[in-house]
Amino acid sequence: MLEDKTPNKTSLAELGEFGLINHLTQHFKCEQDSTEVGVGDDAAVIDNKDKKTLVTTDMLVEGIHFNLSYMPLKHLGYKAVMVNLSDIYAMNGTANQITVSIALSNRFPLEAIEELYAGIQLACNTYKVDLIGGDTTSSQKGLILSITAIGTANEEDIVYRNGAKENDLLVVTGDLGAAYLGLQVLERERQVFSANPNAQPDLDTYTYLVERQLKPEARKDLSGLLKELDVKPTSMIDISDGLSSEVIHLSKNSGVGCNVFEDKLPLDPQVISTCEEFNMNSTVVALNGGEDYEQLFTVAQSDFEKIKGNPNFSIIGHMTDKNEGVNLITRASQKMELTAQGWDALLKKEKE
Amino acid sequence: MLEDKTPNKTSLAELGEFGLINHLTQHFKCEQDSTEVGVGDDAAVIDNKDKKTLVTTDMLVEGIHFNLSYMPLKHLGYKAVMVNLSDIYAMNGTANQITVSIALSNRFPLEAIEELYAGIQLACNTYKVDLIGGDTTSSQKGLILSITAIGTANEEDIVYRNGAKENDLLVVTGDLGAAYLGLQVLERERQVFSANPNAQPDLDTYTYLVERQLKPEARKDLSGLLKELDVKPTSMIDISDGLSSEVIHLSKNSGVGCNVFEDKLPLDPQVISTCEEFNMNSTVVALNGGEDYEQLFTVAQSDFEKIKGNPNFSIIGHMTDKNEGVNLITRASQKMELTAQGWDALLKKEKE
Repeated sequence: MLEDKTPNKTSLAELGEFGLINHLTQHFKCEQDSTEVGVGDDAAVIDNKDKKTLVTTDMLVEGIHFNLSYMPLKHLGYKAVMVNLSDIYAMNGTANQITVSIALSNRFPLEAIEELYAGIQLACNTYKVDLIGGDTTSSQKGLILSITAIGTANEEDIVYRNGAKENDLLVVTGDLGAAYLGLQVLERERQVFSANPNAQPDLDTYTYLVERQLKPEARKDLSGLLKELDVKPTSMIDISDGLSSEVIHLSKNSGVGCNVFEDKLPLDPQVISTCEEFNMNSTVVALNGGEDYEQLFTVAQSDFEKIKGNPNFSIIGHMTDKNEGVNLITRASQKMELTAQGWDALLKKEKE
Repeated sequence: MLEDKTPNKTSLAELGEFGLINHLTQHFKCEQDSTEVGVGDDAAVIDNKDKKTLVTTDMLVEGIHFNLSYMPLKHLGYKAVMVNLSDIYAMNGTANQITVSIALSNRFPLEAIEELYAGIQLACNTYKVDLIGGDTTSSQKGLILSITAIGTANEEDIVYRNGAKENDLLVVTGDLGAAYLGLQVLERERQVFSANPNAQPDLDTYTYLVERQLKPEARKDLSGLLKELDVKPTSMIDISDGLSSEVIHLSKNSGVGCNVFEDKLPLDPQVISTCEEFNMNSTVVALNGGEDYEQLFTVAQSDFEKIKGNPNFSIIGHMTDKNEGVNLITRASQKMELTAQGWDALLKKEKE
């Protein structure tokens, strides 16, 4: 799971910036029809014909968003791409290109950055996106990754955050809370390892959780699934910042209220058993854990038959009048106001 | 020139990430026809109709690319936008949108980030570009800015780096070396101030140099100037990394050689006098200083009459057979091979 600690080390200074960029990007091929010119000029050139262009960007900072003591660089590269693609998919679009900027301190040798790019390349190949540009520079401390994803969509297919209507059904893809618990498991292993470097990690019981944390997959399939079912969501949002905060976002942007039902939250059996082991409330983990690269969307009541029973989707609630607010309906049928406790990087930093 | 050191301070933690983004972007209006949706959804939506989309990205890191002891935050925001727009203009395109991601340590209060955004907004207003997205997060140390610029161009107008032909004229906009000397002047003032905090900076003699360093302007006008003259460059590149390295880039990408004439390099009188004062060689400063957000391009010999004598342009050389290499022809008519000593952020870091 951990990166090789004894690689050959090539100093980045030997290569220089342009040498480094050439070296890292030489095996990336542009295969999207819309990519006319990728890396290598002042700007990339994209031809989207009559489609709309979608653009999103995310920054990942070492010590804030990831910890290299349990996040292998290849996985980090892969995940950083997922974080961005997920936002394009949340518009019901197709992701076609990315730019990647990295700032890194000189403790990183070339081989470490190659690992990072191997993960980026795997993501590009798997998700059919072209790397078309970027920037590579130094940092005073740690590794910072800034990725921009560019996609397309037909105007009539785009789904915004503000289209949810009263009585619409609230639907989430996949399951919730596993990525957060994966992080807890990895953090515990790291502490065990610090205390006793001979301890062997035993992660077999937590395979799914660790995979959701270290190698998440964005929901590229969702757009096709919805098309097959002939369903167009009325609103949609990526829930990587946590379900609670995104339910609030959707409701606020759409000018409606929402009831989320605790007993409808989709939980993997590993999430349930690990919550018991860690003495955590699985509902809190599902609502606020974050880093699940799943999508939250609303559909009209009339689409109920098309969605129900589909293993990709869970209907977890419905939209209400704005004045009813955004609530969790507990198993005991109590109504509790939902509050955003999504992963707020700024607050997190202040607390450290 | 320096930022106010005694502002009111509002902790970023009070606002939270979404609060901060809303606060910072509320006064940015989207005015480009092509901007359908800006900040506030998972991705921005751009409608470029039948034009090509251009994309470029640059990252600026405190302590590597800028020093806040003499770079006011408002100027930094402005300059960071210029760095990116300049790359769109280097394709002979129109810049329409930007995304801005920032990572900042908690030593920055809200008011500091407002200053930064005031500079970004001034740039957006002046250059008619829309802020359409971004990310705001914590850093472990210092301030990191990552900007992506998106532009458009008609296919027939785009100018690449690889189209220069033998005998083409080599042309540069504006003048060279002033931004680098501005940095030397500011650095000297900083040292004087460290030694004696009562010393009053006297920058009157260096106004142009300091302005070129702290508030550079990208060549938005170039595309129109060329159209008026009915000139389409055969190749073009932004020279912010230094003239030498970009002459080499253009030549290499186009598969030709180049002769640059020392006596044709455009120097402002302040550059000449300050080089004397600092005992620096003005040719070296012009060739390798960098941070001049000017454009370098090539035109066919037949365009000579259209370009010559135009105050915006200096013809500084011509392209040759590839086997002749890339050379500087000195005032004494000696031929010296040009070497890239552009600002290599990675090497710079290693040397520190």
